[in-house]
Amino acid sequence: MPPVTIVKVPTTGPADTHALAVLANHGFSQEDVIGIVGKTEGNGGINDHSRLLSSHVWDEILPRAAISIFSGGTEGVLSPHVCFFLASKEPTGLVATGFKTWNIPSELIGSVAHVECVAATVCKMLETARIRSHDVQLVLVKCPLLTAEKIAAARAAGQGIIAADSHDSMARSRYASALGVGVALGEVAQNDLATFLSDGNFHTAKVSCSSGAEIDGCHILVLANDPSMGMALPSDSSSPLLRSFAGVMKSAIDFDSVKTILEQALTPTAPYTKATLLQMFVKAEADPSGYTVGRFRHTMLTDSDLDGLRHARAAVGGLIAGVTGDCHIYVSGGAEGQGPPGGGGVCVLAKWEI
Amino acid sequence: MPPVTIVKVPTTGPADTHALAVLANHGFSQEDVIGIVGKTEGNGGINDHSRLLSSHVWDEILPRAAISIFSGGTEGVLSPHVCFFLASKEPTGLVATGFKTWNIPSELIGSVAHVECVAATVCKMLETARIRSHDVQLVLVKCPLLTAEKIAAARAAGQGIIAADSHDSMARSRYASALGVGVALGEVAQNDLATFLSDGNFHTAKVSCSSGAEIDGCHILVLANDPSMGMALPSDSSSPLLRSFAGVMKSAIDFDSVKTILEQALTPTAPYTKATLLQMFVKAEADPSGYTVGRFRHTMLTDSDLDGLRHARAAVGGLIAGVTGDCHIYVSGGAEGQGPPGGGGVCVLAKWEI
Amino acid sequence: MPPVTIVKVPTTGPADTHALAVLANHGFSQEDVIGIVGKTEGNGGINDHSRLLSSHVWDEILPRAAISIFSGGTEGVLSPHVCFFLASKEPTGLVATGFKTWNIPSELIGSVAHVECVAATVCKMLETARIRSHDVQLVLVKCPLLTAEKIAAARAAGQGIIAADSHDSMARSRYASALGVGVALGEVAQNDLATFLSDGNFHTAKVSCSSGAEIDGCHILVLANDPSMGMALPSDSSSPLLRSFAGVMKSAIDFDSVKTILEQALTPTAPYTKATLLQMFVKAEADPSGYTVGRFRHTMLTDSDLDGLRHARAAVGGLIAGVTGDCHIYVSGGAEGQGPPGGGGVCVLAKWEI
Amino acid sequence: MPPVTIVKVPTTGPADTHALAVLANHGFSQEDVIGIVGKTEGNGGINDHSRLLSSHVWDEILPRAAISIFSGGTEGVLSPHVCFFLASKEPTGLVATGFKTWNIPSELIGSVAHVECVAATVCKMLETARIRSHDVQLVLVKCPLLTAEKIAAARAAGQGIIAADSHDSMARSRYASALGVGVALGEVAQNDLATFLSDGNFHTAKVSCSSGAEIDGCHILVLANDPSMGMALPSDSSSPLLRSFAGVMKSAIDFDSVKTILEQALTPTAPYTKATLLQMFVKAEADPSGYTVGRFRHTMLTDSDLDGLRHARAAVGGLIAGVTGDCHIYVSGGAEGQGPPGGGGVCVLAKWEI
Repeated sequence: MPPVTIVKVPTTGPADTHALAVLANHGFSQEDVIGIVGKTEGNGGINDHSRLLSSHVWDEILPRAAISIFSGGTEGVLSPHVCFFLASKEPTGLVATGFKTWNIPSELIGSVAHVECVAATVCKMLETARIRSHDVQLVLVKCPLLTAEKIAAARAAGQGIIAADSHDSMARSRYASALGVGVALGEVAQNDLATFLSDGNFHTAKVSCSSGAEIDGCHILVLANDPSMGMALPSDSSSPLLRSFAGVMKSAIDFDSVKTILEQALTPTAPYTKATLLQMFVKAEADPSGYTVGRFRHTMLTDSDLDGLRHARAAVGGLIAGVTGDCHIYVSGGAEGQGPPGGGGVCVLAKWEI
Repeated sequence: MPPVTIVKVPTTGPADTHALAVLANHGFSQEDVIGIVGKTEGNGGINDHSRLLSSHVWDEILPRAAISIFSGGTEGVLSPHVCFFLASKEPTGLVATGFKTWNIPSELIGSVAHVECVAATVCKMLETARIRSHDVQLVLVKCPLLTAEKIAAARAAGQGIIAADSHDSMARSRYASALGVGVALGEVAQNDLATFLSDGNFHTAKVSCSSGAEIDGCHILVLANDPSMGMALPSDSSSPLLRSFAGVMKSAIDFDSVKTILEQALTPTAPYTKATLLQMFVKAEADPSGYTVGRFRHTMLTDSDLDGLRHARAAVGGLIAGVTGDCHIYVSGGAEGQGPPGGGGVCVLAKWEI
Repeated sequence: MPPVTIVKVPTTGPADTHALAVLANHGFSQEDVIGIVGKTEGNGGINDHSRLLSSHVWDEILPRAAISIFSGGTEGVLSPHVCFFLASKEPTGLVATGFKTWNIPSELIGSVAHVECVAATVCKMLETARIRSHDVQLVLVKCPLLTAEKIAAARAAGQGIIAADSHDSMARSRYASALGVGVALGEVAQNDLATFLSDGNFHTAKVSCSSGAEIDGCHILVLANDPSMGMALPSDSSSPLLRSFAGVMKSAIDFDSVKTILEQALTPTAPYTKATLLQMFVKAEADPSGYTVGRFRHTMLTDSDLDGLRHARAAVGGLIAGVTGDCHIYVSGGAEGQGPPGGGGVCVLAKWEI
Repeated sequence: MPPVTIVKVPTTGPADTHALAVLANHGFSQEDVIGIVGKTEGNGGINDHSRLLSSHVWDEILPRAAISIFSGGTEGVLSPHVCFFLASKEPTGLVATGFKTWNIPSELIGSVAHVECVAATVCKMLETARIRSHDVQLVLVKCPLLTAEKIAAARAAGQGIIAADSHDSMARSRYASALGVGVALGEVAQNDLATFLSDGNFHTAKVSCSSGAEIDGCHILVLANDPSMGMALPSDSSSPLLRSFAGVMKSAIDFDSVKTILEQALTPTAPYTKATLLQMFVKAEADPSGYTVGRFRHTMLTDSDLDGLRHARAAVGGLIAGVTGDCHIYVSGGAEGQGPPGGGGVCVLAKWEI
């Protein structure tokens, strides 16, 4: 199992790579990077060029195998940053592995084949890294969308595609990716796949998907706890223990669940006495019913000026940043299949020290 | 002192007046309305026609003297609603009084004359209603802005105006109004006025200003606690006590202050045993420094697609709604003079019962 | 046949009704209004409250039978205005008739029943007003959309609806309305209806549809030339002749077609010697292929910040206003079924004088 | 004088560099590039990362001395593309020269020093390239803005800066750059500089400025006609003649001026018989008075959802693309000092053949 440690660095813009110097100060080089997961300051939509720009500058620098996942949209108090997953020589308590799937052809984006590609890739990743599925805390997926060009080319070639417009394809790509992770984690049976794909009713809390025009395949990063460094067991060393805690927000205002997960993450068990929040990964979406918790009419889906994803990231980001005091958090919009409708998965990374 | 009670009703749109039926169910008619303070679902900016539409439909229905204050912008989980301040025959613990100033000519919007008009009006209101300034918990002000038409007319007439564009005039009108309230509440000396007007450094937590194209004067609503129904004194009746609690968020992520005020409001003193949150009035703004709490770079003021006020309302609304579980809250953008830079005033209305 | 004359008045805002005074100056009262067709300054989308506000103020003033059609969106140089169709005692050369259909239930919006309702209504209107279908130059339709509330109610009632979101319902409502007009004008056979409804391949140049949350049925206004006052025939009176000229833009940059129609409209035949442009009605849309005239990639449909309809109105409005020198023109977005893909119908009203 | 030829290539996105292959097909390599002037598909505002991305990819490829000027915003029918100015061995009729100024410190952006830096640089460029100022047809300038970071740093250092927010700084940087070009071209006397800088009343038609976060100095590209290849003189060779024609749109709907310049550019004089439009450079802005041509109220400056520059580019782009049939045109927003208020400079490049 590949142990990892975490370094988080604010950015001054999508092309800012001064984080490399920060890595160096921590004793790491770019060669140690297994994955970079960042928030960039664009609109988080189809034409978010901030995401593309960050991918462009980082993919030139990082090792070929490193996974780069940028999620656009730092609405409200959210603050642009990058979070590195770095290979550690010593066990840390947290393990991670990354992989890139082959390119998914336009006509397969959002299809059963897309689901199966993600599922097979994640299974293989778990096997290779010897991670058991129930130790997995979060699977981050960056997946492709149908750009205007891909749609035009598919039409010219007479190929069927899953969505007539790019915006819709983003949602379907995220959902297919989430479903694929669900299969790999054993949360959905192979023969329910087609049903779930068409009815949109599957969801799991342990996945965070983001679609972007900048890639043609899926970039996948799996985070898990190292079971050999159990939470209840006393550690024989004095080094800190990294831990991941997965949960779910049932709605965009589900403060109680956030509180519960945070309490869990920030209440170290013996022999640890001190806990620090390292990072949070949260999914946000406007409740598709048009009502938050079934009672409060929201206007996120009927706002022709402002995409619902921007609304949702701003609101959930405001809550999480307020409660944690940290604005360098990963709140990603578009939670199809990633937590219940209107809600989303939550994953907290914490460092416990003696 | 004019006692008031509160009724809050969700709306289905800016022209929705079904709240009248709800008032009737509570035993009130439109004649009892002292003020209506609502959130409407537009962009909260210059061209927010939702605000104008709500004003239009309600001003036709309500008594001439009733104050209507609509604040546009229900970003994120914020939910459109109206909150009525209704004249009560019995003391309730909460008192309120409303007044409309004369029309402020274009060339005076944002000027010392604007400040003095608001100050004199609030002083007169307090005197007439026999409210002492230190019992005041919140002064809500709806103030005018310089529309394109007003700017063109002023230019044609060779009149000086305080701002070259409408957006800037909104901020200056809010600030002058806040400063006027500050004068009336004794928080600023008359001869510091000109200085504060030019340096922008004044702020008070007890005011919430919102500017709109729909009015030419200021609409002012003053809320205060009734000191004769003190919080520590046992009540001789079994009727509920309404209470207002004012505080301030030092930043858009100042969860601690929110928690403190809420705890105060929701922890009744004897003989009261039960507390219910009635409403929250909160001001939100992007920190003008470009950094939240001095540390986290935000992108609210450099986003050419999305106004900083929309960002800020979404974020602060997400926090307050999450923490209270209520999306029918009044979060208003543009906090010039209304709380510290990047923060804003908070006012909680609660009902205490035995 | 009901003769009409035209008066066009700029507005200072969506609630501005000073046009009534202008009507009075022209010797008309609100009782003479058959229809009002205006451009309001909102976003033209689902939450365009400017449209709603104009409807609200004008529906209170105008006769019950008068048709009000407001189209939101005055992007770029387009300028807010209202255009009245006024009953004339004398023949003018132009005839018009208006009618409101019954309310279309949510589950029927965009369906065959919607098409048939519009078709039957227009047929009846033509019959009643004794207008022959080939004299019709333009049918303006304001049609309903599925608001968030209607969608929620339909779902709660287990009713099928044609679109899962409001934005999509706007397009489908416009298309069904256009198809209905096509049936009434004999441009489509009754038994091709279902096919056309599903394949989206029908289009006619003589219809301009706009959907809005402010109505539940369709508002229809039919404009036609009076064939008894033919263009080639000398008039025996000295009064001006009003004429309508219908054409089509094959794309958003089809300047040649615009020029041709304008030349036709502004080149009076004997005995007329002088021609004045009264109004233009133009439909605009982003080419659904993603390419203007098949060659120029546009970014209107992949812009997550700005709706494609706003892009399209601004561009086509810029062209038409530039060529005519008039910014008080009716350029409406969303041209489903209204002219070829990427293009739209054009209708010019002109006054010819001797 | 350095002769240049022009190659224009559509792009598939801001990072698309396939234009290099097109250059190769035309017999050019990146080494021949004197300047690249492109339209990218972002919002054209402060946070337009598309511009930054294009700069990033092209600056890596092109010679150090090559000037890259990207203008964001392809609203409406405008289509993303790049236009290369390529060194030619033979005279072509068109000459061009590029230069980058030193970095302008934050506190000098928009100041007299900024003006003088641009003026001195352009003078030196003209001298070095032996171009007479009255042969200059267009000076393209990309200039810096005050980013949030720069503003924060300047404040921390106690330095005065010309604008409190980034958006305002963009306008002031463009204006100072235009004024600098005006000085260099002899259109403004040195001792009127301070006055013009403060009153904003200078304008010239021969400059097109665009500000962006991606640079710290100014990138300047000067285009001029080669007077030795006069328009009236018969050419002794059979090679085409490139010509530039400068004019001005007096407003955003000034179709007549556009027509006049185009007629001039597309009506070759003997011995040339054939003319082809190569490129148009046009500046667009919302009339600061709030009225187009003094008569038509526009809503571009009071739209809190959509920046006035986006409105203006869409409208003017719609007109120019319609009239020319070409969507690969350079329409740039923000015309401070660049043509009269509400209008902007126009420059047409044409190829004349025998």
